Amino acid sequence: MITTVTLNAAMDVTYTVDRVAPGASHRVADVRRRAGGKGINVARVLAALGRPTVVTGLAGGPVGAAVRRDLAESGLRDDLVETAGNSRQTITVVEPERDDATVLLEPGPQVTDAEWDAFTTVYRRLLDESRVVVLSGSLPPGLHEDAFAQLVAAAHERHVPVVLDTSGAALLKALPAGPALVKPNADELRETLGTDDAAAGARALLRAGAQAVVVSLGADGMLALTPDGGWHARPPYRVRGNPTGAGDAAVAALAAGLAGHTPWPDRLRHAVAVSAAAVRAPIAGAFDAPMYHELLALVEVAPLDARL
Amino acid sequence: MITTVTLNAAMDVTYTVDRVAPGASHRVADVRRRAGGKGINVARVLAALGRPTVVTGLAGGPVGAAVRRDLAESGLRDDLVETAGNSRQTITVVEPERDDATVLLEPGPQVTDAEWDAFTTVYRRLLDESRVVVLSGSLPPGLHEDAFAQLVAAAHERHVPVVLDTSGAALLKALPAGPALVKPNADELRETLGTDDAAAGARALLRAGAQAVVVSLGADGMLALTPDGGWHARPPYRVRGNPTGAGDAAVAALAAGLAGHTPWPDRLRHAVAVSAAAVRAPIAGAFDAPMYHELLALVEVAPLDARL
Repeated sequence: MITTVTLNAAMDVTYTVDRVAPGASHRVADVRRRAGGKGINVARVLAALGRPTVVTGLAGGPVGAAVRRDLAESGLRDDLVETAGNSRQTITVVEPERDDATVLLEPGPQVTDAEWDAFTTVYRRLLDESRVVVLSGSLPPGLHEDAFAQLVAAAHERHVPVVLDTSGAALLKALPAGPALVKPNADELRETLGTDDAAAGARALLRAGAQAVVVSLGADGMLALTPDGGWHARPPYRVRGNPTGAGDAAVAALAAGLAGHTPWPDRLRHAVAVSAAAVRAPIAGAFDAPMYHELLALVEVAPLDARL
Repeated sequence: MITTVTLNAAMDVTYTVDRVAPGASHRVADVRRRAGGKGINVARVLAALGRPTVVTGLAGGPVGAAVRRDLAESGLRDDLVETAGNSRQTITVVEPERDDATVLLEPGPQVTDAEWDAFTTVYRRLLDESRVVVLSGSLPPGLHEDAFAQLVAAAHERHVPVVLDTSGAALLKALPAGPALVKPNADELRETLGTDDAAAGARALLRAGAQAVVVSLGADGMLALTPDGGWHARPPYRVRGNPTGAGDAAVAALAAGLAGHTPWPDRLRHAVAVSAAAVRAPIAGAFDAPMYHELLALVEVAPLDARL
């Protein structure tokens, strides 16, 4: 089983309007609601890939209740721990004539020490049945920046490898605990380390404690620095669509590869293919299955120059 | 008891952000959630005025469940009828440096015939204990435009007077059934009848079947045409603040006056005072109680020229 952790679970609400006009009133033509947060998106992709998975993390209040109902309807195993505070919504406002959506991100619930303790108890229990743990996304208010560091350390004690997909201080604090893999994208590398050089950023993350680093580069594929070598994996063509959730799909494939001990070039092939196929799906946590299978044979995986 | 009907109940969510930028991602600094829809706002004001009241209408899904939890926490009697479809949210995005909020209005659930029948059964039962019925707000998808006309007619059969606060086709269709009072504002008169002349619009509504008309005119107070005469009631000074919910506060005072058979000038005094005091409250359904009591003595109520 692969355990996915979403400490700041969300209801992702998508609105379609003609045009966003600040200060005006808008009638929303189309409304979609879906449980989200990066870990939940990863769990959806793992389930679609046929991998047993469980969702844990923190959720509460009316929005948390809606998250749990949606997970149940999606057939995902739900081991979320209840918070007294209300989980966050994210509002994404889509306009037919604009590529960039307007997004409103609530901060999420104020998590108490008792709630964090309750979560870590559930987390430790799940570690006993887990082959891999995926820690994704942001920390809700009230959690200390070293929250992910604690979770990586607890997994290490039980010899469960961790895929960590977060950024900023939450990422930097967790690196010394030695996650098996971190997967920043170019923006997150810039935000976290101030560098636009993916290879240099990846090396810095390795030096800080990550065992392997995969940097996702959008249409340029992925750069991987691992104990077994370095690779650059590229999709055969540019896929147009909605990039939200493409990184989560990549994390799902990389976690599945880690659980199955498949060779790194294979893991990267799957990660690039499912990530590109996720761009073609309208919502995060979904991917275009025929395109995924088509791309698997077409992804190019090239070893990196040893000097890199 | 005064029964308030909210056929399209909502969770009203208010976000505070620095500045709304279309196409950008925004971290929301402050989040507030409150059950809303105009009838629920009216019920809150009636409860604050010490009037026994009940909330009925239609609500469902996770958002409807959140609405009902909030009503319970507010101590309001809840006789809402469940819909299978999800109730709507409204998102109001407030910026410190802009007066007008950016508002996103979901359409609300698709109401089925069976749900409408279940509602009208509850409504008829409530009529037997009601001195006045308040019908407020918009119709959710799936309800026929004559929905309010049906509810006015059912109230007439049981000799319960109706205050109707809606606009457009839903208002026009209900007028022949003879509501005791309709309360458009100037914008709604324009939308419904295409006129900027409040007195002319009010006369048109009387001719179409309303027994009395009160047009709310913002800082200019209210114009009333009733079987007992015509009046213009004015607040003594302009109150600055949030006008959302001021009309609902006026409806609450007018419904309370109708239930108590108080003279029209008194009803208008209360309506103008509580409406102005609602402008001073940050959220719909609330009012500044000390200001309300202060204004009661200061509102000017002048008879209209008989020619009007």
